[in-house]
Amino acid sequence: MRATIMYKAGDVRIENVPDAQLVDPADAIIRVSRACICGSDLWPYKLLDPVPGGRPMGHEAIGVVEAVGVDVRRVRPGDLVVMPFAYSDGTCDFCHEGLQTACAHGGYFGVGNVGGAQAEAVRVPLADGTLYKLPVREDNALIPSLLTLSDVMGTGHHAAVTARVSRGKKVAVIGDGAVGLCGVIAAKRLGAEQIIILGHHPDRIAFARDFGATDVVRERGEAAVEHVRTLTAGGGVHSVLECVGTDEAIRTAMQIARPGGAIGRVGVPHYDVIPAAQPAFYSNITVGGGPAPVRAYIETLLPDILEGLIQPGRVFDRTIGLDEVPDGYRAMNEREALKIMVKP
Amino acid sequence: MRATIMYKAGDVRIENVPDAQLVDPADAIIRVSRACICGSDLWPYKLLDPVPGGRPMGHEAIGVVEAVGVDVRRVRPGDLVVMPFAYSDGTCDFCHEGLQTACAHGGYFGVGNVGGAQAEAVRVPLADGTLYKLPVREDNALIPSLLTLSDVMGTGHHAAVTARVSRGKKVAVIGDGAVGLCGVIAAKRLGAEQIIILGHHPDRIAFARDFGATDVVRERGEAAVEHVRTLTAGGGVHSVLECVGTDEAIRTAMQIARPGGAIGRVGVPHYDVIPAAQPAFYSNITVGGGPAPVRAYIETLLPDILEGLIQPGRVFDRTIGLDEVPDGYRAMNEREALKIMVKP
Repeated sequence: MRATIMYKAGDVRIENVPDAQLVDPADAIIRVSRACICGSDLWPYKLLDPVPGGRPMGHEAIGVVEAVGVDVRRVRPGDLVVMPFAYSDGTCDFCHEGLQTACAHGGYFGVGNVGGAQAEAVRVPLADGTLYKLPVREDNALIPSLLTLSDVMGTGHHAAVTARVSRGKKVAVIGDGAVGLCGVIAAKRLGAEQIIILGHHPDRIAFARDFGATDVVRERGEAAVEHVRTLTAGGGVHSVLECVGTDEAIRTAMQIARPGGAIGRVGVPHYDVIPAAQPAFYSNITVGGGPAPVRAYIETLLPDILEGLIQPGRVFDRTIGLDEVPDGYRAMNEREALKIMVKP
Repeated sequence: MRATIMYKAGDVRIENVPDAQLVDPADAIIRVSRACICGSDLWPYKLLDPVPGGRPMGHEAIGVVEAVGVDVRRVRPGDLVVMPFAYSDGTCDFCHEGLQTACAHGGYFGVGNVGGAQAEAVRVPLADGTLYKLPVREDNALIPSLLTLSDVMGTGHHAAVTARVSRGKKVAVIGDGAVGLCGVIAAKRLGAEQIIILGHHPDRIAFARDFGATDVVRERGEAAVEHVRTLTAGGGVHSVLECVGTDEAIRTAMQIARPGGAIGRVGVPHYDVIPAAQPAFYSNITVGGGPAPVRAYIETLLPDILEGLIQPGRVFDRTIGLDEVPDGYRAMNEREALKIMVKP
């Protein structure tokens, strides 16, 4: 089968690899109907040191189950399923608590002997705990929005939940990528009164406004902090959704949170320490977040997608075939595309 | 009147100062019945640069109202009151949210033109919002426990609340000072199943066990982390109460929290950054805490003290007069005394 392999920063290839096969009795094989290129894939695209043999890429997918191991009970061949970006057993303490990204037996796609989803097929470990059967057909118009349940919509929701967004709150969303935009959707959905998007790409800002952003801060650094303060009558926001992961982003987040406020981090951190430990202390600011347990959030978010109340699938602005994936990385990295859907 | 003035690290004096007087119509003057020396007073005792004119000390008190400004409605002369370590108006958004330590008009004792409580009397700004009238007499046997509502019991409770302690949880308390011991009381009160105290003073550990600690970790640094992991079957704790404020303490806290766990910081931080930003992210660990809104917690904790369900007053192991306060600082700093009550 064909699959996407990254060899080093900037070097993404489509290659013929051995077909995905059942390895463990709890596995399923899914034929990938739709995959994505993720903003987080751009970090290795920028920084990956050479990997002998390469790294299989892709962790978001909707697919059709082709085969299941003998222990699999909850999905059957022919089922259309969404695949969260992390696999999880669904039975350990962490899964029961709804933190599937800390599953005692879980892991990530494209790591170890588990392949990636930017491919014709992928092996899904712990299929019963991981996969979620969708109540629609493969050609449903909602597929793009349902696909975001595998990562970006669940991740934006996690940012909002860990930043403690609730009705009437003032919220800032740092980052106008797909996760940031889904963060806007999530904040709106949870009843935020004011949603300030920090970003500077005109087309993405337009999306953010459509999704519910009430204010736009195009500046960076100190100027951004000042602007948010002005927009909040000096006080800052209750909730900051940090959807970037740079040192500047977390620094800004710490400065625009109001006393008693909370920061939800979902941008993969490329910083080693959380700054402003003393000001944050004196202001009782809480810092939370991490890899989103999107598996847990599917049940929360799916009904709103099916009813058309939220439309996160609008973040996809380009659909490509597998052969075009290397160029898709380039296009997303150059901010030419916002979020790319892959149709293998 | 006599009051405690600190001139620089190690230089604490009892001096005659002008009597506390009403300045603002919202003020009250209280005659200090009981005050304390606080663990946080030891930070300036160790580190304070010379202050011209000195700094008035003390922020915990029970006292009798002697005079009130014309705007004061809720306390009257003769009332026995507990004075939280921060004053607050009781009417701003933050006070309504129960975060009185972020009050729009609030502040701290011993700062600016507001005196300290290690004195014969103290001016209390915003008396209606700040003071809490106690339903007992000045000679009640519960006074020591009630006195802890001005700081250490409320602060230990804040650590537990921000570390999200609840029924059945595994908890670690870093620090065996008065706040740490009150943290043990708070964790027990909130239903923690396992309470691990990290400390190494035998007498304080004995208190901690009495208060509900189930395990003791006497090591520091990596050895402490290993020991906590052993005690929790490798997984770490749900909640860490960080009651010290050193770089080593926050570093340990970040390492012993379980995925999805929370750290409540109440030790005044003497570190500039929160370490382990990446491991904490991948484990979805939340860091919260700050100056405790003890005013908000009085109503929660007072009934349990009155009913004898908790006895935080046991942390006082020495009672002294005002003239002995300088030696009290020395004794607490040398860990000769755990927590000192001052009877001016």
